Amino acid sequence: MRPIAFALLGVATLAGVVAYTVPAANQEGPPVFVTSIPPGYRDWKLISVAHEEGNFHSFSAVLGNDSAIQAYRAGTIPFPDGAIIAALHYRHVPSEENNKVFGQEQSFVPGTPTNIQFMVKDSRKYAATGGWGFAHFQDGKPSGDEAFMKTCFPCHNEIKARDLVFTRYAQ
Amino acid sequence: MRPIAFALLGVATLAGVVAYTVPAANQEGPPVFVTSIPPGYRDWKLISVAHEEGNFHSFSAVLGNDSAIQAYRAGTIPFPDGAIIAALHYRHVPSEENNKVFGQEQSFVPGTPTNIQFMVKDSRKYAATGGWGFAHFQDGKPSGDEAFMKTCFPCHNEIKARDLVFTRYAQ
Repeated sequence: MRPIAFALLGVATLAGVVAYTVPAANQEGPPVFVTSIPPGYRDWKLISVAHEEGNFHSFSAVLGNDSAIQAYRAGTIPFPDGAIIAALHYRHVPSEENNKVFGQEQSFVPGTPTNIQFMVKDSRKYAATGGWGFAHFQDGKPSGDEAFMKTCFPCHNEIKARDLVFTRYAQ
Repeated sequence: MRPIAFALLGVATLAGVVAYTVPAANQEGPPVFVTSIPPGYRDWKLISVAHEEGNFHSFSAVLGNDSAIQAYRAGTIPFPDGAIIAALHYRHVPSEENNKVFGQEQSFVPGTPTNIQFMVKDSRKYAATGGWGFAHFQDGKPSGDEAFMKTCFPCHNEIKARDLVFTRYAQ
């Protein structure tokens, strides 16, 4: 079984590379994905927090660059070009050290970082996906093949009234 | 019953005012609590996120001023004077609009804001409580009587090895 497994892995890896170079250059038309991490995102301001169960068990901080934060605070829809939203995802795990102090199971904290996702607004470049470029990074590298990345837009498009952005600003 | 209810409310309100003016001026010695909201805290950088069940059902974003963030990133313990940590607390509630899109119950978001708590480091002013001044605000005003505020220190003091700070920095 091993040679087959390796061969499949090789194809998958190759497909991944193609998915991230061709769409970036947009040589084959849309969709276009974001393939480099927006610099300085860890210093951005807080939009909100999120917790997803289902298949995710994720704990998230959602941050925005200045353009995104200004639009959120002003209630500007659609978001202006240049706005970027970052979702920092971690595992949602119990905190044993906190629970010890509290004397009961009650405290959950971010565990292992799982991935970082971005939505980058550029109404021309990403016209085919509602003006948003989607990005998914693991360990600092683009991750997820083209089939996976193509799932971003149709789901986000369900929340069209808020310009495809699920997260509301936490006052 | 009404006059009595009003009278009790009056006493409670008065007691609240006394509790927050006397310790602030430190006329009766320690403990000293923080009675004004540190300006600009909503623009501070992210330390981490938190979720408490038990009696809380709270969803939190934990932010730090520049001094606190620098100390976290450098691993500096104890935190330097001037460091301030803010915990923005909300109810941990399901998001019906997100769940509708996902087609299942999986999404939790911040609900009503409940309170904002701060820890302000000043090793001289707050020497009696490990160098930290504690603050608890509801609707922009100091909240919680002196008995409540006195519960902050002994619990935080359980995590002495990390200078009384429970929240770890989310990478």
